[in-house]
This record gives sequence, structure tokens and C-alpha cells, in this order.
Amino acid sequence: MTDQDYMRLAIELAANTNGQTSPNPLVGAVVVKENQIVGMGAHLKAGEPHAEVHAINMAGDKAKGATIYVTLEPCSHHGRTPPCADLLIKSEVKRVVIASTDPNPLVAGKGIEKLRKAGIEVDVGILREEAEQLNEVFFHYISTGMPYVTLKSATSLDGKIATVSGESKWITSEESRLDVHKYRHQHDGILVGVNTIIKDDPELTTRLPLGGKNPIRIILDTNLRTPPGAKIVNDNKAPTWIIVGKNAAAEKIQTMNEKQAQVIEMSFDTLNIHNVLKLLAEKGITSLFVEGGSQINGSFIKAKAINQVITYIAPKIIGGTSAPTSIGGEGFEKMNEVLSLQIKSIETIGPDIKIISKPIRKEE
Amino acid sequence: MTDQDYMRLAIELAANTNGQTSPNPLVGAVVVKENQIVGMGAHLKAGEPHAEVHAINMAGDKAKGATIYVTLEPCSHHGRTPPCADLLIKSEVKRVVIASTDPNPLVAGKGIEKLRKAGIEVDVGILREEAEQLNEVFFHYISTGMPYVTLKSATSLDGKIATVSGESKWITSEESRLDVHKYRHQHDGILVGVNTIIKDDPELTTRLPLGGKNPIRIILDTNLRTPPGAKIVNDNKAPTWIIVGKNAAAEKIQTMNEKQAQVIEMSFDTLNIHNVLKLLAEKGITSLFVEGGSQINGSFIKAKAINQVITYIAPKIIGGTSAPTSIGGEGFEKMNEVLSLQIKSIETIGPDIKIISKPIRKEE
Repeated sequence: MTDQDYMRLAIELAANTNGQTSPNPLVGAVVVKENQIVGMGAHLKAGEPHAEVHAINMAGDKAKGATIYVTLEPCSHHGRTPPCADLLIKSEVKRVVIASTDPNPLVAGKGIEKLRKAGIEVDVGILREEAEQLNEVFFHYISTGMPYVTLKSATSLDGKIATVSGESKWITSEESRLDVHKYRHQHDGILVGVNTIIKDDPELTTRLPLGGKNPIRIILDTNLRTPPGAKIVNDNKAPTWIIVGKNAAAEKIQTMNEKQAQVIEMSFDTLNIHNVLKLLAEKGITSLFVEGGSQINGSFIKAKAINQVITYIAPKIIGGTSAPTSIGGEGFEKMNEVLSLQIKSIETIGPDIKIISKPIRKEE
Repeated sequence: MTDQDYMRLAIELAANTNGQTSPNPLVGAVVVKENQIVGMGAHLKAGEPHAEVHAINMAGDKAKGATIYVTLEPCSHHGRTPPCADLLIKSEVKRVVIASTDPNPLVAGKGIEKLRKAGIEVDVGILREEAEQLNEVFFHYISTGMPYVTLKSATSLDGKIATVSGESKWITSEESRLDVHKYRHQHDGILVGVNTIIKDDPELTTRLPLGGKNPIRIILDTNLRTPPGAKIVNDNKAPTWIIVGKNAAAEKIQTMNEKQAQVIEMSFDTLNIHNVLKLLAEKGITSLFVEGGSQINGSFIKAKAINQVITYIAPKIIGGTSAPTSIGGEGFEKMNEVLSLQIKSIETIGPDIKIISKPIRKEE
């Protein structure tokens, strides 16, 4: 076994907790002594012990003289839990192997420094890319102060989201729709426009065979047109936030606040996507899953306010000049203005195709 | 080496002649004696020798006692060339291995019968599926009397073929556009609607680094609106057929017939896709590449008159409610009426994705 093998396991441990650690990052740790695994752990939930604590606990006395593989630099500061660097020093581990350093300025490099000062051998950068990938959302949130935005669309092969008469159930397969629920589980917030609420009255909950965490449900609703009878403001299955413009009627706001929904008033008469995202970040939304209709998706694209696009394509042709597409709104006028993406993965999912793509960053 | 290995080579030989044998099928042959290849051949062009002839010629005296692998049952009838079955008997081959039998009723089974009667060992069905795949177009044409229709579309990830202002150059990459030219090379005919001629004035020729065969260029143009100055009716680079309805003006028809174009008058006032395809089949078009705009594609889809869909998807988002999509027209009203396809392959091509799909046949 090599450093890479153990680090890969640590990453695997972390990856499986996706959806349960926010606003904390995903972290995994593996303790190895004489080429035997003696401890494993992952951070499971904000406020609970870090990955290193679980792994060192499992190792017990065997931690002494061992190597610990940890996907993210151990913390050196007192947060909700004591510093992991201190724990590792106290446990007398011989070597610490770290995949990625912390993007948080409170921590960056300090944990490593503390360990080295205590005479512990520290190696940094093993499987760094994979580990950074793991915490893309967290790193983005910490470094930009904005949520990581994933836009989802599900279309026919000819790009339609409904027939000319408006029928849309179902374009993609059960397998694809189940996959969407995994993303809901992993995101802090899910966002739609009020038209989707009026038209479909969705629950926007996570419905997986073993349950799942519901995201906070966020409705962009400038003039507060969400029907008081909508499921989402009555079912109490997850928090519901309705973001409205400054001209929303006070009596409507009062009605909604008496329901299971929280109305958030913005100081603008039309909703600007960047302002909305900034507000959501301030309220602790690190990751946002946009499942809006054509108009809302169009607004996010036009604002170039997305970090990832997940596209499910069903092998069907719906046709029709007037059939709606996934990205509506104004669109871009010129080919040199359009949003350029890079394909990150293509896979089949049931009969459908799933494509993950990301905007091409300027430095690329 | 096994029977499969030699047959795979024969299929490979045949596959590489795609585009040059129409209306004949693609056929490859390999002659093997004492596990050594002594002859190889493929049918290169209609009217010229069949694959077996080339392979047996290369083998010379070594054909005696050898095994010949041939992708399609050898012919037993006198066509433009003498029967291959007779040649194999005369060459005293010991064994004939055949991938697929001939769908042509003039030949089916008769070649095999003749060989067996002459005391030659015949094995049928080695790599049958691959060999049938190779001649899907030919088999379709022979068995249905209709051209094999491939619809091509090139869209953004959100299904658009132009921006809201009509800009469309270029959505897909150079690599994808080069790939399209390979298909033009392989098809008997290419079809567009008159709106594409008016808007883009395309050449519809095959432009590959080493040249290529131009398909016959076919314009669906009910009222004969093709401009007399259009490149396609003046450049003489390939035959151009303009299919018009019965109400097209006689003087316009005369003008066109004086150009490098042939006007084909149908006895209907609107063009029905099935009638057009039947006419094209009668005129020897075995394979048709539809590169129509949104409306023409919509008509082919609505008529469910396609055998294959090739979709190039560029990782770009164009957006816009009014931006055109690849399949326009009326479309289907209900989800249970839409055209259901099955994905046959997905690959990346440059930065783009290429998807080949086919309608789900009823028996599947």
C-alpha cells in the first residue's frame, strides 16, 4: 500500500458524508501503523468531532508512532471543537500526510506549522486535486463569500422541457429523477421561481429510498404571488424562504409569515441574481441547487452566476417551435457572449445521458 | 488467430469503403491458408469487381484449399459482374465463412446453396451483428424500398441552433463540423429546406482534407423560392435536385432547369415527407442526410421518417426564449406521442459531445 492508497480511502470516507457536514467541509482521516490501518474517521456533522478525532479515537494507543492521512490540513484554532493539531501532537503520531491546505485564512498553513514545530514529519499535497474537488463547494464559499450554484436541467434530445401543449411529465427517466434527489440531499438550498410554484405546486423535498436531508426551499417571487395554499408554505417539511422585492404587498407578507414560510424583503423592486446570492450566502447557504423553470434558469445564465450545470438528456424528440426550452429569458445576442462551458463528465443514467459541465474560467 | 479475427479484418476492409459503393453494399473478404493471410479485398465501387474477386486474385494459386472470410453471402446471379459463388468453386477454396446472408431476394441463400452443392464447407453467422450493422443502410433500402434517413443536429447544451438575434456561427467546434463532412461523403443525398438556401446560401459539398464524394443536393421547395443566384444551382459541384409542389410557377421551373439544377415536380400542393422519400428511393437514393433547419427537421420528426439521429452538442449555453431549436414545426402535443429513441453511442469530439440514437423499434 502507498500514501496514495491510504489518502484515497480518506477521500472516500469524506466523500460519503456529502450533504451532512455543511457549513463545514468534508474531511476524512486514516491512521496507519506498520502498513496496517488502525483508525478511520470522517467529519460527520458541524459541531461534532473532526475526522482526525474519530480516527485517533479508533486507533487508541496505536496512534503513537503512526502516520495519519487527512484530506484537509488539521485545524490549529479553537472553534466549536479543540484544535486537531494539538490532538495529533498529544497522540504522538510520527507523520501527518495532508492532501489539501485550508482555504480558510484562520487556519491556512498554521496547522502544518504547529505540527512541524512539534517535530512531526508533515507531507502536503498527496492527491491534492481530488481532495480539493471534494470540497469545491466549501472552498468556493470560503474564498468568494458566495454560494456554489449548480443549475440543473432535464430536457429531451432536442432541448425541450415540455411539449407545445405544456406536458412535461416525464421527460427523463426514474433513474435520472432519483439522481436529482441525491443532489437535493447534498445542497443547503434549492431555488425555483414563483411560476414553478404556481404551475406545479412542488414539495421540493428530498425523496430517496433511505430518506435524506431536505434543502432549504427558496422561492424567487418579486411581487409575492406564491399562493397561500401552496404545499411548500404549509407542509412544514423544511424551511421555506420567499424572497420578494420592495414592492411586495404588506398584507401578503403578513399572510405568508403566518404560514410555515419566511418572507425575505429585498431593497430592490426587481430581484438581481447577484444580490440574491449574496443574501443567501450571508444566511449560511453554501450550496444552491437551481431547479427553476426556463425564466429563472435564463436569469442565472444571463448573470453568469453559476458554477456548475447538470444536464439530463432523455433520448426523446419532442419538437415544436413553441415548445419551451430549459434556458429561456432574454438569452445572449451574440455568439461571442454566450456562456462557454467545459464538459467534466458524461455518463448514461438509465436510458438518459447525464452531463456535468462548468464555466471555463478565465485563466484556463 | 480465430475465425472471428479474420472476419473482423474483413469487416474492417469493408467499413473503410463507406461512401464509395452505393447502391451496392459494403463487402470485405480475406483469404487464409494455413493460418496465413494470402488475400484481402473489398468491393470498391458499383460495377467493379466484388470483394471476393480482389481477394482471390491476390491469393492466386494459394486460393486452392484455402478458407475465405466474406462479410456478405457471395452472389450466385449474373449482375454487372459474374457470380462470385462460381469463382470460389473454380478457385477450389475449401471453406467459406460468411458473416451475414443477403437481404436481396435475388441472392438470399442461393450462393450458400451453390457452394455447398459443390462440396465446399460453408459456415454462416460469424460476427453477423457487426456485419449487418455495416450494411444497415443497404439492408434497409433493399428491404423497405426507402432511403435510410439520418437527421443531424448541432446545438448548444440548452438545445439552441442560434442566438435570439439569429447568429449561429459557430456553435459546434471545427472537429464536429469536420465529422459532419464525413457523413456527407458517406451519403447518397443531402437534404435541406429552401429557407436554409435563402438564409445561408450553402454549398452542401463534402470538404475533407483529402477531398471526398459530394452527395446529391436536394432542396425541399414547395413553391420554388430557391434564388436563381444560389451557389447550389450554379456551382456544378454535384447534382442539385429541387423538389417542388404542383403549384410551382412554370417560368421559375424553366429558369432553374437552365441552371445546374433539376426541378422535380410532385403531384401534391404540399410536400409530404413519405412521398418525397419514396421518390428519392426510386431515383436511387439509398441514404439521405437531413441537415435541414428547424422546420424541415420538424417535418421529418413529425412524420417519424428517420432511422438515425446524430446530435452534436457544444458545451455552451445560448439561452433565450425566442432562440431557435433544432426541431421546430408543430411538434408533438402529448408526451406519449413523442419520438422515443435509444442511445447507440456517446463520444466526445473536440470540446463537444456526439450522440448517435435510433428510434426504438416496436419489437424492442
